[in-house]
Amino acid sequence: MSGPIEFYFEFSSPYGYFAAQKIDQIAEDNGRTCIWKPFLLGGVYKTTGMAPLTDQPLRGEYAMKDWPRLGRYMDVPWKMPEVFPVHTVAAARAFYWINERDLDQARLFAKSLFQACFGEGRDISTPQAVADIAASLFVDKDELLVALQDQAVKDKLRDETDKAIEKGVFGSPFFIVDGEGFWGSDRLWMVKKWLQSGGW
Amino acid sequence: MSGPIEFYFEFSSPYGYFAAQKIDQIAEDNGRTCIWKPFLLGGVYKTTGMAPLTDQPLRGEYAMKDWPRLGRYMDVPWKMPEVFPVHTVAAARAFYWINERDLDQARLFAKSLFQACFGEGRDISTPQAVADIAASLFVDKDELLVALQDQAVKDKLRDETDKAIEKGVFGSPFFIVDGEGFWGSDRLWMVKKWLQSGGW
Repeated sequence: MSGPIEFYFEFSSPYGYFAAQKIDQIAEDNGRTCIWKPFLLGGVYKTTGMAPLTDQPLRGEYAMKDWPRLGRYMDVPWKMPEVFPVHTVAAARAFYWINERDLDQARLFAKSLFQACFGEGRDISTPQAVADIAASLFVDKDELLVALQDQAVKDKLRDETDKAIEKGVFGSPFFIVDGEGFWGSDRLWMVKKWLQSGGW
Repeated sequence: MSGPIEFYFEFSSPYGYFAAQKIDQIAEDNGRTCIWKPFLLGGVYKTTGMAPLTDQPLRGEYAMKDWPRLGRYMDVPWKMPEVFPVHTVAAARAFYWINERDLDQARLFAKSLFQACFGEGRDISTPQAVADIAASLFVDKDELLVALQDQAVKDKLRDETDKAIEKGVFGSPFFIVDGEGFWGSDRLWMVKKWLQSGGW
């Protein structure tokens, strides 16, 4: 099979940030394309009953150590944003709005958001912050700010989150390859093996 | 540093079972010893508010697919026990009782329990089942059955579970190497890298 890799992630997810550094190259190395699909973990938590990592006793403390450790290991910049989890409704809505116009620009935009949020610890929670980042990629800022209030744009993100849940996505990052789901940046090695071997 | 690897696990944990196939070899390859430390996830859940994987929507369904997939990938026998999660109080108490007498025998016993539970899908929840497995390793069955009711034996498991929580253990398997914690059988690659490089 040679369908695209679906890369589900939440812009507020550090593990999504780390996976975002690798997934396109893994796809390319194996002759696949990769579709980036942000969703809202908040919507997923309503189904799963889970809570943000940093709200979980012990697990949250582990994560706070694990993220900088992963950053050092991968040689990727890491800076924890002051407010966490990050409110990412504007970011994810903006992504899909740009994505309908230009897939490559949308992907660059997603990478810029992640870089701002976890590479530099900047606040990406407001429409203004999101639009500033988009503007640096030659997106029309005023048009985007209007679009973020558009019901169709709101519905698009809601639909994508619902569809992710229907496909069994319960965390970020989550990869679907040939119908097979893989959860976690920990599992990129397994995604690679799956692509190389065609499954087992 | 060259201290032992601490291997924390719950006998009811499939990911603990998979990690148990690998961890001793990883320790040996890196000139380390490994200390096996079963604990009760039920005790940990009281602190973390987590629930057994199979009780979690979406995540439970993923796990039910992931376990046989891991078994096939690792070429390790896999059979889901009929009753899950498994009640492992007797198993873990028996482990520590044997462990105080003979470390090697206790480790063999732990491996036999895992093999019975997830390799063959057998019920290991009762004192009788646990004692039968111990007896096959030349442990005195009657003596063990009496010991399982001993308050000191009960306290030992409770203490070990409390100590695990104090060390930040929130899931199974969990590894501590040179004071550094690693969660999940997914992270064995990182434990290896840490041992090889002395950290980063």
